[in-house]
Amino acid sequence: LRERDIIRDLLAPLSGAGARGLSDDCAVIAPPPGRELVLTKDMMASGVHFLSADPPETVAHKLLAVNLSDLAAKGAVPLACLLGLAITEGLDDAWLRGFAQGLRTATNQFACPLLGGDTISGVDRITLSLTAFGHVAPGAAPDRAGARPGDLVYVSGTVGDAGLGLRQLLMANDVGGPLVGRYRKPAPQLALGQGLAALATASCDVSDGLLRDALNICEASDINMALEGPALPLGQAFLAAAPDILMGSLAHWQRFAATAGDDYELLFTIAPGAEAVLLTLSQQLGVTVSHIGRCLAHTDGPRLQVRWSDGSDQLPEVLGYQH
Amino acid sequence: LRERDIIRDLLAPLSGAGARGLSDDCAVIAPPPGRELVLTKDMMASGVHFLSADPPETVAHKLLAVNLSDLAAKGAVPLACLLGLAITEGLDDAWLRGFAQGLRTATNQFACPLLGGDTISGVDRITLSLTAFGHVAPGAAPDRAGARPGDLVYVSGTVGDAGLGLRQLLMANDVGGPLVGRYRKPAPQLALGQGLAALATASCDVSDGLLRDALNICEASDINMALEGPALPLGQAFLAAAPDILMGSLAHWQRFAATAGDDYELLFTIAPGAEAVLLTLSQQLGVTVSHIGRCLAHTDGPRLQVRWSDGSDQLPEVLGYQH
Repeated sequence: LRERDIIRDLLAPLSGAGARGLSDDCAVIAPPPGRELVLTKDMMASGVHFLSADPPETVAHKLLAVNLSDLAAKGAVPLACLLGLAITEGLDDAWLRGFAQGLRTATNQFACPLLGGDTISGVDRITLSLTAFGHVAPGAAPDRAGARPGDLVYVSGTVGDAGLGLRQLLMANDVGGPLVGRYRKPAPQLALGQGLAALATASCDVSDGLLRDALNICEASDINMALEGPALPLGQAFLAAAPDILMGSLAHWQRFAATAGDDYELLFTIAPGAEAVLLTLSQQLGVTVSHIGRCLAHTDGPRLQVRWSDGSDQLPEVLGYQH
Repeated sequence: LRERDIIRDLLAPLSGAGARGLSDDCAVIAPPPGRELVLTKDMMASGVHFLSADPPETVAHKLLAVNLSDLAAKGAVPLACLLGLAITEGLDDAWLRGFAQGLRTATNQFACPLLGGDTISGVDRITLSLTAFGHVAPGAAPDRAGARPGDLVYVSGTVGDAGLGLRQLLMANDVGGPLVGRYRKPAPQLALGQGLAALATASCDVSDGLLRDALNICEASDINMALEGPALPLGQAFLAAAPDILMGSLAHWQRFAATAGDDYELLFTIAPGAEAVLLTLSQQLGVTVSHIGRCLAHTDGPRLQVRWSDGSDQLPEVLGYQH
């Protein structure tokens, strides 16, 4: 398939209103009146951000999902996306068809139609770029800088699953199961994020690793944060699989989960009085949220303090994925 | 420089209002009320879309300019951009600093501030992606499908310069001059495009090659087109340099200019009665426009007919850059 054919045959069928069939220079859309636009763009390269053996359907899902996770952290409703697809010469058509099928399913699932983009050939590894647009009420998108001393720190869902799934994949190629599923097909917390827009004092998604992302909030908000290792939400599948992969104490696995990244959960802070509203929201949506710590005034001490279940309060040397 | 440092030290200083200092998950902007959004995204890879020896400042300029050329073709006013920067391990910091400097100059020149994006490392050749946003009056963005039989075909500026500049670069590395300048630092026709929004029946930019882009309009509008080779606007620098590079007739160089691509001029059609308005616009802006052909009803004959100055009417085998 040539670039022209990829666009016409595989991607144009996915395109939404305003995309001009992906055959014009640009897409043209009317933004929702009275709303702010929320914009994000993430890149993924084969062998760096996904495994070359990952099914192309899940690569497409992940590409959209990691961008929508950024929108979720800002409370945005997805609007549309643009795709940048840089492929190797002679790439198997089956990969492209699988990728397009995965993108079709994901854009439908998240109501985020494809509006345009670019396809190029001649790079040495598949390199993907996606720009996602969402919309939010004016002034409602939480940033990372609004956490105040006394605020409570929460994280949604469970953490560490994707990191353990990746480790399973690196140790044996054709494993499946829920942990690998979390690595390959992350679920952006869009509904929770939209509910949090009016509630969270600071919010981000957990992509690089919970501790790394928590430190980002600390630095942006100029606060310290005390986290409780035993409060980190570890899932059943994680706890069942962890001992099979590597011997280690519970504290070891808490540290792993706190630094593994690729979770695409929401890490956020709320004022102390907002707990009841948060729990109601959590119940309405059926999304668990875990209270994992609190915000402190910034002193000369370390920004992040964590107490692990073995009594240690040492920070891991690496807090998350290093950029 | 690590990814984090590139963003903080080199790119954050370029960022505009709503970018949240490039330190949040997303940018948040209020779209101009009552206007439609125009969206485009182009990728460029080193050794494919630019030469690895091209100065990083001009690579950054070109990356923005080729996207703004798409906006120009739709009559849009630039609003903002998002950058995707995929770099090789151990890339020289000087390259990154030069790229950031070039992007700073270009985003200032075109009033198109950086709002966000992503930086990744570990690819095998520098791969760039840019998403540009513009705005336009509702319904005013011309597409490629509106040309009607009888409409007149125009192109702005001169064509072939960038293609000849590239040929000069491929034959001798350290040449300069106006043709190389057109290859490395294309000038998007934003003012002309904005003036044409109310006038053009179809419009696109000349990126792949004039004949290839003309064929796109023919197919989208379901028309034929008759072009006059001698009417193609060849610049003084082109005519002066062409004989030095390769012997050939004027018709040979007309064909070269009609297929070389990378011109980033506007190719557009207007109704026959609109000529006077177009010429006034051209004079006001100081941008030349050349009448190069006319639109015909679609028959079973070839979509494109060109008569060259040597009397031949044969189409080149390759109409432009092949995707």
